[in-house]
Amino acid sequence: MKVLVTGAAGMLGRKFCEKLVAVRSIAGKEVEGLTMADIVDPPPIAGTPFPIQSAACDLAEPGVAEELVAHRPGIILHTAAIVSGEAETDFDKGYSINVDGAINLFEAIRNAEYRPRVIFTSSIAVFGAPFPEVIGEEFFLTPLTSYGAQKAIGELLLADYTRKGFFDGIGIRLPTICVRPGKPNRAASSFFSSIIREPLNGQEAVLPVPDTVRHWFASPRSAVGFFFRAAEIDGQLVGPRRTLSMPGLSVTVGEMIESLRRCAGDERANLIHRSPDATIMRIVEGWAQALDASRAKQLGFEAETDFDEIIRAHIEDEQIKL
Amino acid sequence: MKVLVTGAAGMLGRKFCEKLVAVRSIAGKEVEGLTMADIVDPPPIAGTPFPIQSAACDLAEPGVAEELVAHRPGIILHTAAIVSGEAETDFDKGYSINVDGAINLFEAIRNAEYRPRVIFTSSIAVFGAPFPEVIGEEFFLTPLTSYGAQKAIGELLLADYTRKGFFDGIGIRLPTICVRPGKPNRAASSFFSSIIREPLNGQEAVLPVPDTVRHWFASPRSAVGFFFRAAEIDGQLVGPRRTLSMPGLSVTVGEMIESLRRCAGDERANLIHRSPDATIMRIVEGWAQALDASRAKQLGFEAETDFDEIIRAHIEDEQIKL
Repeated sequence: MKVLVTGAAGMLGRKFCEKLVAVRSIAGKEVEGLTMADIVDPPPIAGTPFPIQSAACDLAEPGVAEELVAHRPGIILHTAAIVSGEAETDFDKGYSINVDGAINLFEAIRNAEYRPRVIFTSSIAVFGAPFPEVIGEEFFLTPLTSYGAQKAIGELLLADYTRKGFFDGIGIRLPTICVRPGKPNRAASSFFSSIIREPLNGQEAVLPVPDTVRHWFASPRSAVGFFFRAAEIDGQLVGPRRTLSMPGLSVTVGEMIESLRRCAGDERANLIHRSPDATIMRIVEGWAQALDASRAKQLGFEAETDFDEIIRAHIEDEQIKL
Repeated sequence: MKVLVTGAAGMLGRKFCEKLVAVRSIAGKEVEGLTMADIVDPPPIAGTPFPIQSAACDLAEPGVAEELVAHRPGIILHTAAIVSGEAETDFDKGYSINVDGAINLFEAIRNAEYRPRVIFTSSIAVFGAPFPEVIGEEFFLTPLTSYGAQKAIGELLLADYTRKGFFDGIGIRLPTICVRPGKPNRAASSFFSSIIREPLNGQEAVLPVPDTVRHWFASPRSAVGFFFRAAEIDGQLVGPRRTLSMPGLSVTVGEMIESLRRCAGDERANLIHRSPDATIMRIVEGWAQALDASRAKQLGFEAETDFDEIIRAHIEDEQIKL
């Protein structure tokens, strides 16, 4: 089985590739080769048991997608995207990568006339307030950001290309990924990871919202697990509604902090400083608090069921010494 | 007020233009000029009180949309589309006109840097079975045709361009239009109009489905009324969910025939011959039977409330002598 990953320099794309190198198989088949594509050259992975090809390329440019699918990868994980903040400030760039880039990839596969499994990463940003406390499987998509609109368009295209038999697509509607390793960024959601990650590293973190704020999370480890599951499930069982809301954990910020206290002690938990930020509070109010993920669960997708697990996964995966 | 209509040679575009000529005003303002654009040159309308420009052009071609919006029409009715049957058989043509064409128009308006009211015609084809008997205002879009996917993408783009302030868009999710004047076509839905239109003209008609089949209708007259209402409503009242399910009438084929009997007598109603067609029955089973149109109704959109009205509107509008 050959595998292509777009956005392979991104956090989730990278972790998926590392896992692939570690386990050497996917969807019950041995991995024969991996192409890691991104706008920047993805750093190499050490000790690979199969050939890895790195490609620094822009999917929005003509001919690029054709080259990536020329060796007919049987599994294509499409995570390449402009993130929500940038898609909102740079309208053209967002549509260029998030919509045109997806269309170019889908068209290249269609024109190559074979039928790989295509895993498309979508987001809870396809939902815009007002919505119920738990967003049902049949709740409609009302994005309130360009990023959300672009992901919703991707979901529609994925379903239509699959229905027409051009490929076999599965959409994965990811929860907010927490704990993200690395440094804080300027995304409005950045604090959700910061308030866990920084204290675990002995650093202070700022909490800009009240402890009562509730949101929907899964760990990077679960996200990678979703991709592996999406690679192997029988497409017939999914039916025409190709995108699945992934399971996640609905917790409040207060519960996250209590969990940190349990996992790492009072001293670390006390490194969180409350500094309310009206702008961030307003943005976060428009975000989903929980989703019904019954379909995905029935299809064998699994996520953490308490936040201690999410913190412990981060400590293990990032090899943090407490 | 200048007005631009795309798809002006189509049945609804044409009827809207004729009404505009008859009433001479829209959204409380006098019409100063009308551009009728279509892939074929729209036939002229007699006795116009304001200048009408005809444009035979393809919105999918570069530069065309820019030319159409160069004189800054304050109201743009976008009905140009490849219909569902053709969009299903010619995948590229459908996306080219129904998605790229819409994007070209939207981008041309954005680049012209003014903020017209854009009325986008969507369709109940954005919904795909299974769905509830009455499709709620928050039911999700799960098109099962390329046409439906293309219209759903148009709805998402309309909302995002409006949210960003590039124009002021209103999406109009039309019921099946009945009675369509003219000749039967090869659309699976063609019989809904045929079984009324042909008998009224003293001709025989074939009914390929059981009398119990239920569907969702509005007359061409109501559709034109929706466009006029969409031109004038306060966009602020619509909020970020820019597409509205239009009111319609949910009736069974049996009720339609009884209505024909009341309006035109037994002799005409007996011109309908039952000839079940399994293919058409299967297609029709996947169609919406009724929609909740509460939002549109609250905003003053109105449709027929019984099928006799729909038949009488057809008899009047098409000047049929019984």
